[in-house]
Amino acid sequence: MNEKEYTMKEAMLFSQRIGQLSKALWKAVEKDWQLWIKPYDLNINEHHILWISYHLKGASISDVAKFGVMHVSTAFNFSKKLEERELLSFSKRDTDKRNTYVQLTEKGEKLMQEMIENYHETPHSVIDGSLQLRELYGKFPEFMDIMAVIRNIYGDDFMEIFEASFKNIENRFSEENHVIVHQESQQ
Amino acid sequence: MNEKEYTMKEAMLFSQRIGQLSKALWKAVEKDWQLWIKPYDLNINEHHILWISYHLKGASISDVAKFGVMHVSTAFNFSKKLEERELLSFSKRDTDKRNTYVQLTEKGEKLMQEMIENYHETPHSVIDGSLQLRELYGKFPEFMDIMAVIRNIYGDDFMEIFEASFKNIENRFSEENHVIVHQESQQ
Repeated sequence: MNEKEYTMKEAMLFSQRIGQLSKALWKAVEKDWQLWIKPYDLNINEHHILWISYHLKGASISDVAKFGVMHVSTAFNFSKKLEERELLSFSKRDTDKRNTYVQLTEKGEKLMQEMIENYHETPHSVIDGSLQLRELYGKFPEFMDIMAVIRNIYGDDFMEIFEASFKNIENRFSEENHVIVHQESQQ
Repeated sequence: MNEKEYTMKEAMLFSQRIGQLSKALWKAVEKDWQLWIKPYDLNINEHHILWISYHLKGASISDVAKFGVMHVSTAFNFSKKLEERELLSFSKRDTDKRNTYVQLTEKGEKLMQEMIENYHETPHSVIDGSLQLRELYGKFPEFMDIMAVIRNIYGDDFMEIFEASFKNIENRFSEENHVIVHQESQQ
């Protein structure tokens, strides 16, 4: 038995901090995301499913639901709509007959590439808001304490999908290394 | 002119990290929050308005909207509903005739106290998920890098309301210091 003690005051202060900051951060991310995907007639869930399929090079519906933090039925229904638009295809795997897998079609893959190319056509407040930290640290912040909290809540398999997506980005972008120049006027 | 350079790969990695973690964290906070307020027939927006009014000891509708990260019309409409339930009252201040202010009624204040007393009747995954960091740091994590990003996005006045709410919690709970014992079975 391991006892951990904290006061109600600590709980309230922490609850206030994490509640406010997670809401504010998510609302900023959501706004950036909506502006980015607006020209493509996709909602956030649809784009998230495409994004996960792109970065995991195909994924089971249950992995899409887990990593997308959405219900399995939501993941399934929006995947169906993406299939109708010929952006995604369904399949079964011989090694795992119970699960349904989705992967991007050629059209879906092309769309993802195009959206990445147009990433900087819309504002990304969370990137702009992190540039000072990037300057300070020499790289974008990694938020390791938040990552630890999320690992505790969502489990190791959630983090493994996270790592897989990072590895895919590392590989996809290793050749191409063009530099984005962000200009900011200073007084 | 100050130029900051980063590659598309960096942008994608960072975007993936902050997008996934902010969604996962907010969904966990939202779930905890809903379980906590469920017995009181309030939705998250309504409770957030009461919570802000409680911690700021009254607030203008525009401060409620800003700090609650909701539209002014949402803040106003839900405040009206809370007024109908006699939990909140509207007023004007002599020093600031343009803004409408809300504050908790005695009934509203009592409800907030009761909810705080019952805080540990429901699970709080973000608190449980942070206990290891609390043990490591000797206190709950403060997520200062995320706070810096939020300051850049939402501005200094957002952070001032944040600080005011912390100060209020410090004061309200300074007398009472009862300890919550969290028991966790270990193998």
